[in-house]
Amino acid sequence: MAQNSKKLSIPAATVPRLSQYLRKLQEVQSRGVTTISSRQLADEVGTNPAQIRKDLSYFGEFGIRGVGYDVDRLIAELKKCLGLNRSWNVIIIGSGKLGTALALYRGFQRQGFNLIGMFDADSNVIGKDRGAGAVLPITDLEKFLTGNEVHIAIVTTPSAAAQTVIDRVVAAGVPSVLNFAPIRATSSEPVILRQVDLSTELMTLSFYLDK
Amino acid sequence: MAQNSKKLSIPAATVPRLSQYLRKLQEVQSRGVTTISSRQLADEVGTNPAQIRKDLSYFGEFGIRGVGYDVDRLIAELKKCLGLNRSWNVIIIGSGKLGTALALYRGFQRQGFNLIGMFDADSNVIGKDRGAGAVLPITDLEKFLTGNEVHIAIVTTPSAAAQTVIDRVVAAGVPSVLNFAPIRATSSEPVILRQVDLSTELMTLSFYLDK
Repeated sequence: MAQNSKKLSIPAATVPRLSQYLRKLQEVQSRGVTTISSRQLADEVGTNPAQIRKDLSYFGEFGIRGVGYDVDRLIAELKKCLGLNRSWNVIIIGSGKLGTALALYRGFQRQGFNLIGMFDADSNVIGKDRGAGAVLPITDLEKFLTGNEVHIAIVTTPSAAAQTVIDRVVAAGVPSVLNFAPIRATSSEPVILRQVDLSTELMTLSFYLDK
Repeated sequence: MAQNSKKLSIPAATVPRLSQYLRKLQEVQSRGVTTISSRQLADEVGTNPAQIRKDLSYFGEFGIRGVGYDVDRLIAELKKCLGLNRSWNVIIIGSGKLGTALALYRGFQRQGFNLIGMFDADSNVIGKDRGAGAVLPITDLEKFLTGNEVHIAIVTTPSAAAQTVIDRVVAAGVPSVLNFAPIRATSSEPVILRQVDLSTELMTLSFYLDK
């Protein structure tokens, strides 16, 4: 996948931190703050100034020594880098509690993610509104993907259905998947696939709790 | 925090993979499989055999060359390492859609996580069952924590309430927190704090989608 050269130089571990800086900067911007030092930003997000300076160095040297970063400009740079100066179309597959919780999550639209459809296999919920308009039957998935450009598919189906659903959206050309089902999903196609796994999170806590 | 020496030698990045191996091994065990090679396990979880062998080398050399790992024994070792040969008491704070989805998540009990309480500030839901018995008023949090040993607090409150709630559970001695609220939570106490952040996940996808 072609990436611009600035992006290629940014390590994978830096990307989630950039999103945290962006959210924090948007918050301080809404409080009327116009400049922020690496120390202040570090305190706000719970890291150290050296980390901030290193992460932001990928954007060039536009912080002013002794003054700090221009909040508006840094927000604009981060949004551009994170691909948030445009909008992305998102669907959710699985309209259970988790799918509904995600559909109702307000941060979605705010950052340019348009939730344009929600699918389920259960005839009892099809046609009902679970936060993203009428739930569509999963049998209509391919037809929907032919008529609508979808950039991100969020999968919140039961485990047994997840891999099949992921194979279907990938085969239909959806370029990225965020999977919440507790399986280790795979894809033979060059798709961007990320997992959010509650059971792994709990086991990791357990590892560190156990003395 | 004191850790046994085997645990100390395990890198942080290895821990989530161990939990994936465990879940996959439990699945193949339920299909009647008794031995598995690093190649087979790698194929099942979508990694390579060298990674598997490296990760499992922390548990000693009990794989048999040309035969593979004894599934029962490997499961027992991984559970012991991950602290899953005992049970952990969990509470959920915030009984909205996400909190309810987590309370109903079946993987909880199966891996030894006992959900013993759920809290909310909204008088309309207090007393109702959202998957973990009657929802308790958040004003009773400290009283509950005095009378019950809680190992993990899962926070699914709105952003504005999350840091205060985390401060309260930490002050009451809860040793670990799994935060789902879209804030960068911090703690001055030596607590194990992990974040699950949908907005970061979406922005990371956006970063890689944007060409």
